[in-house]
Amino acid sequence: MIEKGVLIVLSGPSGVGKGTVRKELFSAENTAYEYSVSMTTRLPREGEVDGKDYFFKTREEFEALIERDKLLEYAEYVGNYYGTPVDYVRETLDNGKDVFLEIEVEGAKQVREKFPEGLFIFLAPPSLSELETRLVTRGTESDDVIRTRVEAARRELSMMNLYDYVVENDHVEHACERINAIVMAEHLKRERVEARYKKMLEVE
Amino acid sequence: MIEKGVLIVLSGPSGVGKGTVRKELFSAENTAYEYSVSMTTRLPREGEVDGKDYFFKTREEFEALIERDKLLEYAEYVGNYYGTPVDYVRETLDNGKDVFLEIEVEGAKQVREKFPEGLFIFLAPPSLSELETRLVTRGTESDDVIRTRVEAARRELSMMNLYDYVVENDHVEHACERINAIVMAEHLKRERVEARYKKMLEVE
Repeated sequence: MIEKGVLIVLSGPSGVGKGTVRKELFSAENTAYEYSVSMTTRLPREGEVDGKDYFFKTREEFEALIERDKLLEYAEYVGNYYGTPVDYVRETLDNGKDVFLEIEVEGAKQVREKFPEGLFIFLAPPSLSELETRLVTRGTESDDVIRTRVEAARRELSMMNLYDYVVENDHVEHACERINAIVMAEHLKRERVEARYKKMLEVE
Repeated sequence: MIEKGVLIVLSGPSGVGKGTVRKELFSAENTAYEYSVSMTTRLPREGEVDGKDYFFKTREEFEALIERDKLLEYAEYVGNYYGTPVDYVRETLDNGKDVFLEIEVEGAKQVREKFPEGLFIFLAPPSLSELETRLVTRGTESDDVIRTRVEAARRELSMMNLYDYVVENDHVEHACERINAIVMAEHLKRERVEARYKKMLEVE
């Protein structure tokens, strides 16, 4: 009677520190998340291990997987494909483990379409709440600087739309604490727990 | 620009340990919750302070409040009224503080009707997951014992319906940790955060 795992998708504007937060989460001794290894057509670098750092594929293999809808999301950067193999994700979830994806905003959009039941977390730069403070206090910044920041905030805000939660990356430890709380809460949702108990009583 | 607080409603079958969990939550030094003091028509006991242990009211006063819809929930036990004054709850939430209610299942039902945006947490007895283990292992219990437990589980399951989250009270510290995680996650929901930032940018 295994309860399905949660697909955790961490994304946010580039430069916000997604990789750092992910590394910190996985450095915890008791991390319960399974990291989803990406697939790529770029050549392995010195020391990189197939199946650990990436799944290394040829262009033909990768395009065959696209064709067969075997990627949860993919994109092409500087002539190489990068993507998330869907079979690994589904199998790991079915085994009751939470899968952790750390991907770009574009990729997260593709995942939301294919896997709407995922847990989508937007990592937000502290600039937003700093801006909030600045708008209230004022005086220290020129109007131009404020205007540029307001524009950036508007762009970031418009990206948040498809996410379930917003975590500010003010300190990496705080961000991790919040992400862990969100995942814990997800497992305690009534629909999940109830389904498990109902199944148990049906068996009876 | 104060963000509204969350109304946290902790309930569950009688005897599950709601009071113990609530006391443990409030014994934490840095608790961020405001405890909602109940109103009652019973006489104060030795040492009980009006406004701290209860708001003590006469029967006439209490019934006037019922009449004016000034109670979030109320019930009569052994000839005395007990209830939650709604004004205190609304004012505290408007001041950006989270209000904590620990009430019976019947009261929680009334609160859900009047305040559907509350955060409803069902405290479940560990008997449910113990039952799960027993159903799988078997052999140690007579069929009668199992049947009685299954019936109890069915009753508890049918109560869960109107709650957002289910927390098992296996250990009081674990239960508190889970409740704190649920409240933290609630504050990080995209709708909440987004609304705050949008308001900030509108002001601009």
